[in-house]
Parts: sequence; structure tokens; C-alpha cells
Amino acid sequence: MNLNIALLPGDGIGPEVTQQAVKILNAIAEKYNHNFKYTKAAIGAAAMKINGDPLPNETLKICSEADAILFGSIGEPVHDHDPNANIRPEQGLLRLRKELDLFANIRPVQTYESSLHKSNLKEEVVKGTDFVIYRELTSGIYFGEKKISKNEQEATDTCTYSAKEIDRITHLAFKAAKSRRKKLTLIDKANVLATSRLWRKRVQEISKSYPSIQLNFLYANTAAMQLILKPTQFDVILTENLIGDILSDEASVISGSIGLLASASIGEKTALFEPIHGSFPKAKGKNIANPLASILSAAMLLDHFQLYDEAEEIRAAVEKSIELNITTPDLNATNYFSTTNVGNFLSDFIL
Amino acid sequence: MNLNIALLPGDGIGPEVTQQAVKILNAIAEKYNHNFKYTKAAIGAAAMKINGDPLPNETLKICSEADAILFGSIGEPVHDHDPNANIRPEQGLLRLRKELDLFANIRPVQTYESSLHKSNLKEEVVKGTDFVIYRELTSGIYFGEKKISKNEQEATDTCTYSAKEIDRITHLAFKAAKSRRKKLTLIDKANVLATSRLWRKRVQEISKSYPSIQLNFLYANTAAMQLILKPTQFDVILTENLIGDILSDEASVISGSIGLLASASIGEKTALFEPIHGSFPKAKGKNIANPLASILSAAMLLDHFQLYDEAEEIRAAVEKSIELNITTPDLNATNYFSTTNVGNFLSDFIL
Ligand SMILES: CC(C)[C@H](C(=O)O)[C@@H](O)C(=O)O
Ligand SMILES: CC(C)[C@H](C(=O)O)[C@@H](O)C(=O)O
Repeated sequence: MNLNIALLPGDGIGPEVTQQAVKILNAIAEKYNHNFKYTKAAIGAAAMKINGDPLPNETLKICSEADAILFGSIGEPVHDHDPNANIRPEQGLLRLRKELDLFANIRPVQTYESSLHKSNLKEEVVKGTDFVIYRELTSGIYFGEKKISKNEQEATDTCTYSAKEIDRITHLAFKAAKSRRKKLTLIDKANVLATSRLWRKRVQEISKSYPSIQLNFLYANTAAMQLILKPTQFDVILTENLIGDILSDEASVISGSIGLLASASIGEKTALFEPIHGSFPKAKGKNIANPLASILSAAMLLDHFQLYDEAEEIRAAVEKSIELNITTPDLNATNYFSTTNVGNFLSDFIL
Repeated sequence: MNLNIALLPGDGIGPEVTQQAVKILNAIAEKYNHNFKYTKAAIGAAAMKINGDPLPNETLKICSEADAILFGSIGEPVHDHDPNANIRPEQGLLRLRKELDLFANIRPVQTYESSLHKSNLKEEVVKGTDFVIYRELTSGIYFGEKKISKNEQEATDTCTYSAKEIDRITHLAFKAAKSRRKKLTLIDKANVLATSRLWRKRVQEISKSYPSIQLNFLYANTAAMQLILKPTQFDVILTENLIGDILSDEASVISGSIGLLASASIGEKTALFEPIHGSFPKAKGKNIANPLASILSAAMLLDHFQLYDEAEEIRAAVEKSIELNITTPDLNATNYFSTTNVGNFLSDFIL
């Protein structure tokens, strides 16, 4: 298969981990006779350093022409210290999502035996957790009209959802549930919000086409409790943008393996793959960042193109490296390997 | 002191636990020579059974004339099974908040040595947690304009905040921080929302009047992680309505003592006190519901009228009952006491 991949390393440890993901993709390409081509582009704080724009036109063009995007991470401390800054690195990411219509953010939350003990939750609570969150990513209050009155006495955000926007991600989530444990939980605030009531209506309607799937509803506040009280109860979670932002980050701490969690943001035309950990500026340039989440994001990229065997091969290699303790300091405090060496091990293992 | 207390037992276990709280308030009144008068009123599903209205005018009148409101809980399963129901018990509570302008929801999250092991989080993570959440309760997306288009193809919710609405709860939160560990964390989505940016502006401005308080900002998604990763880092949390709804319920599972968590909803004219646990229909009528959260809500009521010694006396009694294992099945599986007997013990202990 020929794939044109846009490479957006971004800020912090982004470049280091992305480099290892490319190494692994290259190993897969060699072994399976694929042809992966990469085009690098700037985004976030790194792009702002060049011409002030967190999403340069050039980058947007490269991304729109690519089959898929491999994304590192975004954000630099200097921009966080000024909460009133008008342009922020994150805006690059938000605009990219919108322009490319990456409407479905998909986040699997799984556990790895060897890192269970790293969770702040008790092992018996966490063990067996295996769910995936479908978060709507290009609408809702993120992209509605925003106003601040001239005298700064009032501000307004608007949250709008159309049936079409709800339907397309809902179908994806139901399809995912079909190939999993056949349970879908819609999380909303239907006891308060009109948009949530539209979500419930559409999702109930669409559920008729998926009779094998058990559909449940949960309020966002109750879900925030249940994720900690009984994470194993979930299979596929479907939710809107802001609630999804909060709950998917909450969910990322359950398994104790935040350095192992990958994500995909899917559109009709292209898709973006990124580790869920942030830019982790303190680790930048030290060759200690865990590349596994980025590498597992590359596996999700292969899944997206139905290269399931190849994706499986990456996952098997990752599990092997964890089993053998060939991991970075976050998983392996005493006898750790560098970012590069973890990548090398995986690449050798595959080839 | 003379206090006129509106009593809103509500649904599920609400009536049982409220009865014990009244018993304890009576013990305090007797010992300290206060005069507490109670006026009972219907709300929620219980009120809907009478004339379909979850907040009858009569109830609203009683509440507006009262010095304070002691609230049980709201919600009945029959209403949860129909997500499209137009009138729901919760609307009674939402309208009550709005009509009485109960703008500040205050939720202390503390740990009790004896129930630490009940937490799904590890004991060493949870130990020493002691923070309080100030959630804005009468504005934001809860009370903005709501629209569903005729053909049900689009829905909109509106989130508006005025400087005035932000300022009044912000002052309360800063004052709380002054008498605590002097740290205030504003939680928002200022990287996305205009209303959040107004919150940051106002809170930064107001912080100048409280120079002894250390002010921090956290995005809601990051906060959802940090609450689990390091709950002891928080002192006073300040946030808007929807984010506060989600995060305060998330926070309620940290300590493992959800049956012990109380809350206050404060307005200029009156205030409402309620346990944070819900109506727990399965336990209804069995005399097994834990009355301690309702009793601790009564202690918050006394605090509100500066009856600090009296409130302290209740808290000491509660701690004694926990220490001696004179508790309901949720805290004491083998040798438990009934709701009524826990109330009796506390009342005797005080008198
Ligand atoms: C960086 C920020 C704007 C973004 C969001 O809020 O969506 C982030 O939290 C995420 O989830 O990718
Ligand atoms: C019952 C519901 C409307 C309410 C809310 O969303 O505010 C509840 O979750 C709460 O926190 O008191």
C-alpha cells in the first residue's frame, strides 16, 4: 500500500516520540512491502516561532493532501503563563480539527498487566478495564459563536449540534460496539441541555439499526463517578465535545499507563493519530520520553487503512518490550532504556 | 437563636435521612437554647405525585420565607427510564436554585481515617485530602437560552456569564481560602471558551484584594486528571456550573466516604443544605440509609449562621460514631446499626 503521511512532531517531546513511531512504520513497510512517504510540517509553539501562526497555511495544505497525519504533541510552558494571550499553540490544533473535519476522536483505554500497579486506583478496580471513547471533536461549544461584551461585563459561548453531526459519529460508535462487547453508553446532560436531548433522540433512533447493541444513558456527572467506581462496566462510550474532553482525560489516569495511550481523530477524508500524553516539556531533549503511545498511535493509523496484521505486529512488539522491561523511566525506574533504544528494540523485533 | 427551617425531604431515602438530621438539630437546640422551627414542603417526584409539579408554588413560598432549607434528595427511577419526559423531578431543584438565587454550591471533600480503605483510590493517594469546591450554581449553560429546531435537526444551548455573577462567588471562594490553606484554583476551559476567559479576567482582578492567597489556573480536563493523580494538592476550587457539576461528582468518590459528604447552596437571602448522595431508591424504606451526610449538612447550616460551636459538636459526634462503628451497612457491613439508631446515638451523645 502507498501512504502519504503528514508528520507533525509539534512541541516538547513530540519530535522525539514521533521519530520512533516513524522508525516502526518503516520497519513495517519494509517487512510488508508497503510504501510510506512522510512530509514534515510545523504546528503549535514550534510553528509560532517561525511566523507567529500555530497552524501555517503550508501545514494545512500538507495535511489536507495527506492520507493520514501523525501528530506529536502541542504546547509550551511559556504560553501557559499568560492566560490572556490571544494566540495560543492549541488554536493550531483546534483549527486543524475543524478544517480537516476530524469529527470523531477515538480513545481506547486499556490496561497492561505490568503497569497496573502504577495506577492510583486499586488493582482490583482497574483490572480488565477495556473501553473506547468516541468524542465528537468538531462541533458543540468549542466551535459555536463566542462573544465578550465591549465593557467586558458579559461573555457568551454557544453550543450547537445538528442531527447530521450527531449521526455520523454515532454510526461509528455503534459499529465499534458491534465488533466489541456490544454495549454503548451515551454520556450527556439530558436533564439540563437541549443539545443533549437531541443527542438522545438521534442515538435512540439510530440504535434501531443496531439491534444487537445494548444502549445505555448516563449523565456526565454520574459518569465521572462511575469511571472511578467501576471502569470495567464500559465498552463503547459516546459523547459530545466538552464532556468528552473532560471525561477522556479523567479516563486516561485509570489504567496507570498514560504513556501507553493512543488516539485517533477521524474525518471523512483524512485522519490524525496522536499519543494522548502532552508535550511534557521537562523531558524534552533528554531521550527519556516514552515512545510507546506514539507508536501505538501509528498502529491505530494502520488499523484505519485496514492493515490489521501490521497493526497487530506493532502491538505484539510493544507488549514484548513491556514484558521484557525494555522501557523508558516512567515504566522502569531502575534499569531503563532510552527513547531511541526502545524504538530500536521494537524495530529489530519486527524485522 | 430563632431559625425558620424549610424541610424538603424529597424522594427515595431523603425523608429517612432528613428525619435524623432534624433529630440532631433538635438536640443542639435543646442543649444550646435555640429555637428551630420546621416547615415541611414537597419537592421532586414526591411533589409530582400530588399535582404534577416538581416545585409547587406552596413549596417555593415556604422556602423563600425560611432562613434556611434542609433538603433530602431528588429523583425516582420511573422518571429516569424516559429520557424524553418533559417534566422531570430535577427541574424542581433547578428552579428552586434559580428562584432563590442560590448561586454558590459549596462541597467540602474530606477523608475519614476509618473509611479511607473504602476508596477505589489507593490509601496513600487519598490520605490527607481536604479541599472544598465552590461551584457557580445559577448561571452558565444550565440557565441560558435553549432551542430545538422545529424539524428537530438542530439544537442549541447558550452559556452566558456576567462579571457580577462571577464576582460574587469568587469573593466567597477567596474568603474561604483565607481561613484555609490559602490556595485557590480556578478551573475552566480558557483555551476554548469566551466565558472562561471572562472568569480568568475577573478572578485575576479580584485576587488583588486577597494578596495572601496563591491563585492557580487549571483546564477542566487537566483538573479531571489531577483530582485522581494528586487530590491532596487542592485547597479551594472555584469553577462554573457545568464543569463544577462533573468535577464535584468526580471528587466525591475520592475519599471513599460518599455517605459522609455534605453540601451547601448559598444565596444572598437564604441557603439550602443537602447531602451529596442521591435518592438511592433501592435503600428506600429499609432504615439502612446512612444519615451522616444529611446530619453533616445540618452542621453546615449551623456554620452558616455562625453557630460554630454547635456545628463542631455535631462533627465531633459524627466522628465518634464512626470511631465506635455505630454506623449503617455502607460503612459497617457486619455489625451495622439502623438509620434511626445512628441518629439516636448522635442525639444522646450530644445531650
Ligand atoms: C488543547 C485543547 C484545546 C484540547 C481540547 O480541549 O480539545 C485538548 O484538551 C484535547 O483534548 O485534545
Ligand atoms: C439533578 C441535576 C440537575 C443536578 C445538576 O446537574 O446540577 C445534580 O447533578 C447536582 O449536581 O445537583
